Amino acid sequence: MNPVKIGILGLGTVGGGTVNVLRRNADEITRRAGREIQVCRASTRDLSRSRICDTTGIALTSDPDEIVSDPDIQIVVETIGGEFPARDLVMKALENGKHVVTANKMLIALHGNEIFAAARERGLMVAFEAAVAGGIPIIKTIREGLAGNKVEWLAGIINGTSNFILTEMWEKGRDFADVLKEAQALGYAEADPTFDIEGVDAAHKLTILASIAFGIPLQFGKVYIEGITGITAADVKYAEALGYRIKLLGIARRTPKGIELRVHPTLIPARRLIANVNGVMNAVLVKGDAVGPTLHYGAGAGAEPTASAVVADIVDVVRTLTSDPENRVPHLAFQPAAISEIPILPIEEVETAYYLRLSAEDKPGVLADVTRILASHHISIEAVLQKEMPDGESHLPVIMLTQKVAERELNAALREIEALPTIKGAVKRIRLETLG
Amino acid sequence: MNPVKIGILGLGTVGGGTVNVLRRNADEITRRAGREIQVCRASTRDLSRSRICDTTGIALTSDPDEIVSDPDIQIVVETIGGEFPARDLVMKALENGKHVVTANKMLIALHGNEIFAAARERGLMVAFEAAVAGGIPIIKTIREGLAGNKVEWLAGIINGTSNFILTEMWEKGRDFADVLKEAQALGYAEADPTFDIEGVDAAHKLTILASIAFGIPLQFGKVYIEGITGITAADVKYAEALGYRIKLLGIARRTPKGIELRVHPTLIPARRLIANVNGVMNAVLVKGDAVGPTLHYGAGAGAEPTASAVVADIVDVVRTLTSDPENRVPHLAFQPAAISEIPILPIEEVETAYYLRLSAEDKPGVLADVTRILASHHISIEAVLQKEMPDGESHLPVIMLTQKVAERELNAALREIEALPTIKGAVKRIRLETLG
Repeated sequence: MNPVKIGILGLGTVGGGTVNVLRRNADEITRRAGREIQVCRASTRDLSRSRICDTTGIALTSDPDEIVSDPDIQIVVETIGGEFPARDLVMKALENGKHVVTANKMLIALHGNEIFAAARERGLMVAFEAAVAGGIPIIKTIREGLAGNKVEWLAGIINGTSNFILTEMWEKGRDFADVLKEAQALGYAEADPTFDIEGVDAAHKLTILASIAFGIPLQFGKVYIEGITGITAADVKYAEALGYRIKLLGIARRTPKGIELRVHPTLIPARRLIANVNGVMNAVLVKGDAVGPTLHYGAGAGAEPTASAVVADIVDVVRTLTSDPENRVPHLAFQPAAISEIPILPIEEVETAYYLRLSAEDKPGVLADVTRILASHHISIEAVLQKEMPDGESHLPVIMLTQKVAERELNAALREIEALPTIKGAVKRIRLETLG
Repeated sequence: MNPVKIGILGLGTVGGGTVNVLRRNADEITRRAGREIQVCRASTRDLSRSRICDTTGIALTSDPDEIVSDPDIQIVVETIGGEFPARDLVMKALENGKHVVTANKMLIALHGNEIFAAARERGLMVAFEAAVAGGIPIIKTIREGLAGNKVEWLAGIINGTSNFILTEMWEKGRDFADVLKEAQALGYAEADPTFDIEGVDAAHKLTILASIAFGIPLQFGKVYIEGITGITAADVKYAEALGYRIKLLGIARRTPKGIELRVHPTLIPARRLIANVNGVMNAVLVKGDAVGPTLHYGAGAGAEPTASAVVADIVDVVRTLTSDPENRVPHLAFQPAAISEIPILPIEEVETAYYLRLSAEDKPGVLADVTRILASHHISIEAVLQKEMPDGESHLPVIMLTQKVAERELNAALREIEALPTIKGAVKRIRLETLG
């Protein structure tokens, strides 16, 4: 069969990595796909810049429009990243009848509904495996591999930068700010790390995972997002003493009242496999009603792991070039007509267990006041850890683990506790999930 | 669209589980697949036996031939297990133009080449996700999700029974025979557990994994197989003291001299995620050149986890009913014309590190003799652990970890060591892999 002709938008980390993998593994890929995959053209902002890939035989242009309108190109690979111009280029590629492969989580999370509708109208594929968890084929796993299941919940370490930071804080007792600086120096964190450490990047990915797990529209705006900037070395240490690790998780759960969609630091039992996913690695735990818990682990970023996912998508698209669009795997796993409007649960109604840390005066009756308030809100205490008074401090750190309680109820209790004259400052709270 | 009509051969654990999952999740599955999946007929040896599934609306027969020749049935699901009559029924289903979904590892490992050839001739699908690692979609992951990679190696805990036994031995210091009896009582091990504990079941699955990872024919006869019956509670304890766990692994590795295909107990570093996969759970670690290491974890057996894989395969087949056979994913991941005849490396030529345990007289010079022999065979020692003389014993246990050495060379050294008058009995050896 004729080679399939590809155009790539952007030759940075992901685009360059894709060219490298397609070249190096050309034989292996052709042995699988049954036909050659040929990168004909690529766009790049600065034609004179040095690149991680060899571009021999690839016509370069600084104008991405040339690629999305090139009649020879069958598949456009979008690896520019970001919202614009990526959205417009992808829409234009679709208008011009091209299939699209993208690694762009923000694009899919924010504009996926519109993009998939446009693709469907024209019988085109938009593949986005690389948008979530890099090289881990988690989209394919949930969408196809677990297709017989009703997914109950999923929880993922889907941001490598925050996982690197939390791992360093745990392994070495270091402070957040200190590790962040190192992560930036190592290139694991961007110059502006906000999206990573504030949970926005993880929320983009969670939006996509939840959609294909539950058959709901992409609704990034409804994700509750809390980052890791408030986690201290002390929290990490206290959690460890209680048998827990702190991880930034993206969690989606089906409940009778609606779907929970939330990204936040989370205490999880140290004995769980996912609690031992360290450094920049990613992992997604998916609980299906038939299969039970499954874990999918691998590199969540980097040129070649991401390229691995991009190339797998290209091969998938190549296989379906001649197939009947009706029978393809739907973009969001469920048939468009079967997408459900189950409501997303407001965070106040979400029930979780909590880690609470408070600074209490060291005198009789203080703990009794706190537990009385918690009891009056029907909040049960699972464990209490009282630490020695730190040097030069006037208050004792007291750590409590609660049983499950609705966030609204906890907030009410915390307001009362914080009003006690014996308690200093705000109560620190971190959600806790057993993932059992 | 019209419902797709399915016939199931066998209504035991897997067949019954499949009926249950298809019924319970009918809505969810139809939302994904776009059409209803209808189990019309099922065969069962004993029509009067009680079953785990409700068979209302399913025409039952004790003659499986009726199912494979029923003109209304489009997909035959084979969940009888074992070599015969499964092979003949599957071949007959194919002759009659039916697609096949099977959970039968032995069937695929032993007769897959012939079955896939027959299927190809008629443009039919044979799907077998459930044959390896139960509910973990590992076939799809390697075949499609990692299609851009040159797979370097894979290592899997792919037999739940042996993993349960080794986990109990490790957690509770129990003996092999003792745990085996419990596993049989719990139903984790068959009345005849030979296939599980001797590594044959794992070898069936490894045969399949290696074929789709490297694009080689199924060649079960070339797998080196060693079970866990020789592992003692003492070995498990010594391994732990050295920072290792013992797991029964199926390992396939690409080397310049050929492909390694082996199932054996293996010491692996305790800090690896896969070393912490316990009980009956399965996990497969796959190292691709682009993606790096990836781990895929879940339940490897049981009615519903296996049914999860069977149903995912049914949905996959349903999607391709109208597609051009040329463009489907090849049964063994690689195009039939591109299957490679890379040789399988004989076990004598395989290089690994080793755990050695010997019983030595407690007198000067004994260890020097042993290390001299090892050195003369260019075998480097990585660690030595000498234990106290056990009560009532005349010899000391000495444990050594070697660096990598070809098995032939190690065997020669061990023959010399075993001939020393100061060494009692055979040297126990267990292979060691860092999986790094």
